[in-house]
Amino acid sequence: MTNRLRKIINDPVYGFITIDDPLVFQVISHPWYQRLRRIHQMAFAHLVYPGAVHTRLHHSLGAYHLMCNALSELKSKGVEISQDEESAARVAILLHDIGHGPFSHALENVLISNTHHETISIQIMHVLNVQMKGQLQKAIDIFTNNYTKPFLHQLISGQLDVDRMDYLTRDSFYTGVSEGVIGYDRILKMLTVNNGDLMVEEKGIYSIEKFLVARRLMYWQVYLHKTVLGAEKTLIKIIQRAKELIQQGQSVQAASVTFDFFLKNTTGTAFIEQQLDKFCLIDDYDVLTTIKNWIFHPDVVLSTLCRCLIERRLLKVKLQAEPFDQDWIKTQRNNICQQLKINEGDCDYFIFTGEAVNTTYNPTEERINILFKNGAVTDISKVDNALIHQALASPVKKYYICYYNC
Amino acid sequence: MTNRLRKIINDPVYGFITIDDPLVFQVISHPWYQRLRRIHQMAFAHLVYPGAVHTRLHHSLGAYHLMCNALSELKSKGVEISQDEESAARVAILLHDIGHGPFSHALENVLISNTHHETISIQIMHVLNVQMKGQLQKAIDIFTNNYTKPFLHQLISGQLDVDRMDYLTRDSFYTGVSEGVIGYDRILKMLTVNNGDLMVEEKGIYSIEKFLVARRLMYWQVYLHKTVLGAEKTLIKIIQRAKELIQQGQSVQAASVTFDFFLKNTTGTAFIEQQLDKFCLIDDYDVLTTIKNWIFHPDVVLSTLCRCLIERRLLKVKLQAEPFDQDWIKTQRNNICQQLKINEGDCDYFIFTGEAVNTTYNPTEERINILFKNGAVTDISKVDNALIHQALASPVKKYYICYYNC
Amino acid sequence: MTNRLRKIINDPVYGFITIDDPLVFQVISHPWYQRLRRIHQMAFAHLVYPGAVHTRLHHSLGAYHLMCNALSELKSKGVEISQDEESAARVAILLHDIGHGPFSHALENVLISNTHHETISIQIMHVLNVQMKGQLQKAIDIFTNNYTKPFLHQLISGQLDVDRMDYLTRDSFYTGVSEGVIGYDRILKMLTVNNGDLMVEEKGIYSIEKFLVARRLMYWQVYLHKTVLGAEKTLIKIIQRAKELIQQGQSVQAASVTFDFFLKNTTGTAFIEQQLDKFCLIDDYDVLTTIKNWIFHPDVVLSTLCRCLIERRLLKVKLQAEPFDQDWIKTQRNNICQQLKINEGDCDYFIFTGEAVNTTYNPTEERINILFKNGAVTDISKVDNALIHQALASPVKKYYICYYNC
Amino acid sequence: MTNRLRKIINDPVYGFITIDDPLVFQVISHPWYQRLRRIHQMAFAHLVYPGAVHTRLHHSLGAYHLMCNALSELKSKGVEISQDEESAARVAILLHDIGHGPFSHALENVLISNTHHETISIQIMHVLNVQMKGQLQKAIDIFTNNYTKPFLHQLISGQLDVDRMDYLTRDSFYTGVSEGVIGYDRILKMLTVNNGDLMVEEKGIYSIEKFLVARRLMYWQVYLHKTVLGAEKTLIKIIQRAKELIQQGQSVQAASVTFDFFLKNTTGTAFIEQQLDKFCLIDDYDVLTTIKNWIFHPDVVLSTLCRCLIERRLLKVKLQAEPFDQDWIKTQRNNICQQLKINEGDCDYFIFTGEAVNTTYNPTEERINILFKNGAVTDISKVDNALIHQALASPVKKYYICYYNC
Repeated sequence: MTNRLRKIINDPVYGFITIDDPLVFQVISHPWYQRLRRIHQMAFAHLVYPGAVHTRLHHSLGAYHLMCNALSELKSKGVEISQDEESAARVAILLHDIGHGPFSHALENVLISNTHHETISIQIMHVLNVQMKGQLQKAIDIFTNNYTKPFLHQLISGQLDVDRMDYLTRDSFYTGVSEGVIGYDRILKMLTVNNGDLMVEEKGIYSIEKFLVARRLMYWQVYLHKTVLGAEKTLIKIIQRAKELIQQGQSVQAASVTFDFFLKNTTGTAFIEQQLDKFCLIDDYDVLTTIKNWIFHPDVVLSTLCRCLIERRLLKVKLQAEPFDQDWIKTQRNNICQQLKINEGDCDYFIFTGEAVNTTYNPTEERINILFKNGAVTDISKVDNALIHQALASPVKKYYICYYNC
Repeated sequence: MTNRLRKIINDPVYGFITIDDPLVFQVISHPWYQRLRRIHQMAFAHLVYPGAVHTRLHHSLGAYHLMCNALSELKSKGVEISQDEESAARVAILLHDIGHGPFSHALENVLISNTHHETISIQIMHVLNVQMKGQLQKAIDIFTNNYTKPFLHQLISGQLDVDRMDYLTRDSFYTGVSEGVIGYDRILKMLTVNNGDLMVEEKGIYSIEKFLVARRLMYWQVYLHKTVLGAEKTLIKIIQRAKELIQQGQSVQAASVTFDFFLKNTTGTAFIEQQLDKFCLIDDYDVLTTIKNWIFHPDVVLSTLCRCLIERRLLKVKLQAEPFDQDWIKTQRNNICQQLKINEGDCDYFIFTGEAVNTTYNPTEERINILFKNGAVTDISKVDNALIHQALASPVKKYYICYYNC
Repeated sequence: MTNRLRKIINDPVYGFITIDDPLVFQVISHPWYQRLRRIHQMAFAHLVYPGAVHTRLHHSLGAYHLMCNALSELKSKGVEISQDEESAARVAILLHDIGHGPFSHALENVLISNTHHETISIQIMHVLNVQMKGQLQKAIDIFTNNYTKPFLHQLISGQLDVDRMDYLTRDSFYTGVSEGVIGYDRILKMLTVNNGDLMVEEKGIYSIEKFLVARRLMYWQVYLHKTVLGAEKTLIKIIQRAKELIQQGQSVQAASVTFDFFLKNTTGTAFIEQQLDKFCLIDDYDVLTTIKNWIFHPDVVLSTLCRCLIERRLLKVKLQAEPFDQDWIKTQRNNICQQLKINEGDCDYFIFTGEAVNTTYNPTEERINILFKNGAVTDISKVDNALIHQALASPVKKYYICYYNC
Repeated sequence: MTNRLRKIINDPVYGFITIDDPLVFQVISHPWYQRLRRIHQMAFAHLVYPGAVHTRLHHSLGAYHLMCNALSELKSKGVEISQDEESAARVAILLHDIGHGPFSHALENVLISNTHHETISIQIMHVLNVQMKGQLQKAIDIFTNNYTKPFLHQLISGQLDVDRMDYLTRDSFYTGVSEGVIGYDRILKMLTVNNGDLMVEEKGIYSIEKFLVARRLMYWQVYLHKTVLGAEKTLIKIIQRAKELIQQGQSVQAASVTFDFFLKNTTGTAFIEQQLDKFCLIDDYDVLTTIKNWIFHPDVVLSTLCRCLIERRLLKVKLQAEPFDQDWIKTQRNNICQQLKINEGDCDYFIFTGEAVNTTYNPTEERINILFKNGAVTDISKVDNALIHQALASPVKKYYICYYNC
């Protein structure tokens, strides 16, 4: 019996995750990957769902596990996938979120301006590829959709990718919102490949409907929960205020040198590419410790917002189908100005509005193709009697207002 | 229909936790309680079990939930419990861990020297009691076992308390170590009160055995897992090194003013009582951000240990039934000194030994009393044919060694 | 501590079911209730889903458990429910399925012609009420919707009753179709009463949507699964053939005297009322043993159908959106006649068509009312942006054909 | 993409069971295998645990699934297993229980005297092997331990075989006795092969302990639950009484010709070999329908016992560590004789005693070998500090008495 590399990781969601590929092991051991331990998957959702404290590392391990299963299912159906391609697809999904910064989506485009996390993920993959002597090239090709088998990319980033299969499963598990559970194992078993594209077998239709409905529920009930929304908007306001004070020349200190660096420099896509080593040092811990420190900052706007977030005395949030009445907003604004003794302009930090949008299924952008037994291929929104049809294709927009109300 | 206070919290472990008591709600909303969100329940266990990132807040909410169920079961069996007592017992369990500092047990007695977390819990309860105008007095009496119905205290701190029922359940859930699962719901249904003391009905014997075996398994497989042990010992070494450098007059800065304060002052039980407001500002975030900063500290001992922990390049750990060979240790020591170019004394930070001890059931200290149908009361270790008997009563001791091996 | 009646029943679905009401205990102990142990909840669904072998008894215990929870939730919200009413509602739900005969829905209206099982349930309740000296009167009033608090009836038989909450939960659990899982516990927590009627709180909307989608999925994926449909239609054909042979004067013997009695007499609602004692002796066992015996019956139609069912060599079934082509059917018919050497008329037993219909939500017949925070009441199909809207209100009809194809 | 045979079966316990081997499919489709649908896995345990109505067919499919996983794990560790061997081991486990008669263990050696079900399983395998043209030969060799790789047999019948892994898992699942849950997936991952024998890796020790403790719990809490024991003993008494009446020349009729045949003929190992086709026609349905019929038999002993079982008005059972007092028994006996107006000899049907025995781990008969990292092999009962040690090696015996007490 040969002695092979084989690590088994306990996972409350899937039971066990097996790692038996040296390249995968090398990637996981890298400090930049380990950093994902210190980034919450769901930012401040845990303020409403106390169990939702799982990490980006755990999510990407989970997506890796589903990728292993998906590839194995497809191979058992006769789809040709070489060992190299398998390894590359596994590495690509492991690294798909490596470019996330502190509090992931909540601070995306805020801390590093105008830069999507996937852009940074690709930048990082290129650096790692050099470090690992080109071993990641095929993973990069798949990730950037430059590989000859499009279904491999679609498994990473598509309508039915293992990324969202894992996050929906894991987020509903950790929040305890059991209604968000999807039948990921059945969907995996229904996947197939037709002309190089990922499709779903006919008898998987109801599972796909269920998947889309569960996703819809998770958006409105969890991701866009008004309290979660309010907390995450407060976080953005804090960073914006800090940057404003810095621009005004006031003394604002972060808890770590690296986080300080990003607060005090103009960032952006080109900039970040030069600073990846620094970027890979910051995480939720730098930000939250900094916010705790700022509770004692002399600026009343900054300190008040920080205290609200840390002590969970959050801004009040309303969410409704129509825009809010401007007069009512004005009255609230005045009250807040007076109560906090701040000037009119600073009041924008304590009362502000916005929109939350979600589409159940958008057939123009997305595509879930059903492969019928007779070989026909049909978009799910066009299947007879399906739940998912035209009426669900237009986005649902809701209006929110956050305001100080202590 | 009257409009009552009623909050429902999703919990992946128990489904829903209901809060319908204004006092309980007031306690949960307090910033000192909210701080428990930022303390991991299992310190560094997540380095081995990536799912184990749940918090002290979540655990104490869970224990509160089990307390509600336990009291309701006992009442349905005819045990007299007034509404005031119920409220007090609920508050007492909510606050049982309020005195935990950063990384809870891992840094207990290290950051605040020689002070058990329960001592600090009581100190904090007294302060809160003043703030809340005496409403916590009965809770304090129950917590300190000065109340006339001893079973209420035993539900908080005893062999079958809801504290350990929740942590075993929750820790096995979040680690994914399904074998650690206990039948908490059945045990709760088997609880009874006899002459004021908490007991277990005869038909609960096998569930209790299972509970003790699960606890044993969790200790050796999870809490004392060698990698977890190694990481937590490294954390202690880091704090000790920082304090040593400070005493030597070197510049060592924490990431927050408050954590800095505790590093630079001699602590202890009397001291902490004066500094509870500061104590309730520090948590895992201060400590971990500080450790991340120290990766760049000029002291090679401090920076190396910090890097090991953050990048998960941990000290190697061995665990065995016999003490380690002194000669072998000496050789390792020399190698490490040379490799790291540190002096003999500093080497203690990179190679050290210790003992891990656990007892399955200690009938002299603990007591699980079985109440038989005929009224007889017997300690579980004396029940005929029981699994738990003399042989399991002596502690199992294992020896560990941690050493640098990169 | 008083010694109260208190039984705890393990249930894989809900954990524990508690019985602490003497009247409930008396009902459960009655042999007519115990008979439900011998009637499968899902008839022949286990031929496709081998785990789906749970019984009517288990289902009605489960519905009883949910009723206990629902009543307790409503009371905690201030809805007035007396102890008598609670007891009556519990008994009513326990007995709601007592009138089911062998293989429940699969043989409904076949064995006892033109008689819905609820009609028989009421007949049986009246007999039990006499036996139990009028103790069931209030339960009967609630069951027949003659009680002053309509929500009690709606909990038993309505759009959100505990009957379907249990069967959807239990059937998805036992089939392993995890996508059919509904959030019964959350729905229960969202129930409320408004002007005597059962309603759902505003924040329960997504859970209700999920419930309707799960029900839809269970219908098409499980209850109307083509193989299940085929087996249950075959069962009906067997009973019809046996009755036909009996009418023709041929010797056809059932495995039990009682089942024989029902085969050989013209039944119907009035008839059954006189024969309840006999009716409560027959169950799945009489029918299946009889079918096993008939494998050796000289009539080739009867014996062939029986062998198909017992050996799971089932008729082939197709399910599609359009009616089947008559010419194609004719050809198949001829083939079957020749293969089995049976005459043209008997061929109807081996090839036949029909329709399966299901409606996701029919707002004209059903009503799920949402109670908004501002006091407004709206049918769920009229809520803004809801998933459940007009397009789902029309029934979906599918055509099936079953035919012999061995 | 080739079109391969591939069936997916939903299983509430494991999610999905995949069948992709034509031989396995052929075996499952055989009517003799399908018969296992009509034999309860746990006989009358459902009288106490209403969920425990799962079948032998479901259990053997589950054991097959675990076998697939076990073989796949071993292969991934480098153990050589050919595709033929894999197929054979899968078929062998599928058929391991094919020789069970109605109510399996409860009637073992009673209906077919002095014949263990495994003996009949082998007889049946030989017949099937002829039908399937020798394709089962390797499966038979493995099943009878005549194959060169003993670990394949040990996976089917040994201390850690997939048979008991499935039945413990499935029985605890269906009864809802969550404390009986074993970590089957972890145990499978810890299996290894050393010198041809199945062993457990060192780090699996605690899981094995947990497995043995769970088994112990299941025995005393479920399999030997006094009510279950009483019902199953009553079943035996019924069969014995029927046979006695037949021998006396009285008219006793079973509900099916085949069951009648076995009641009225002297059976035994040699006899059954000639009657396998008849044997494979009887199941729980014949027996239970017969018992329902006998409620109206003129013999008061037979009819009373049958009514007790069907109406769940069971004999009272006591279970204790010491034998029962003979005088007390005598008094009870007399009361029963008088109450039922039966003669002294017949009273043995209504009051009788016996012993229930279970051993937690018997190192002389059983063997769970632990393979240490250094290559040493040790029986688990000899591992340092293990829970499973000498004291648990002796069988625990309990005395029971069943008696009529209506």
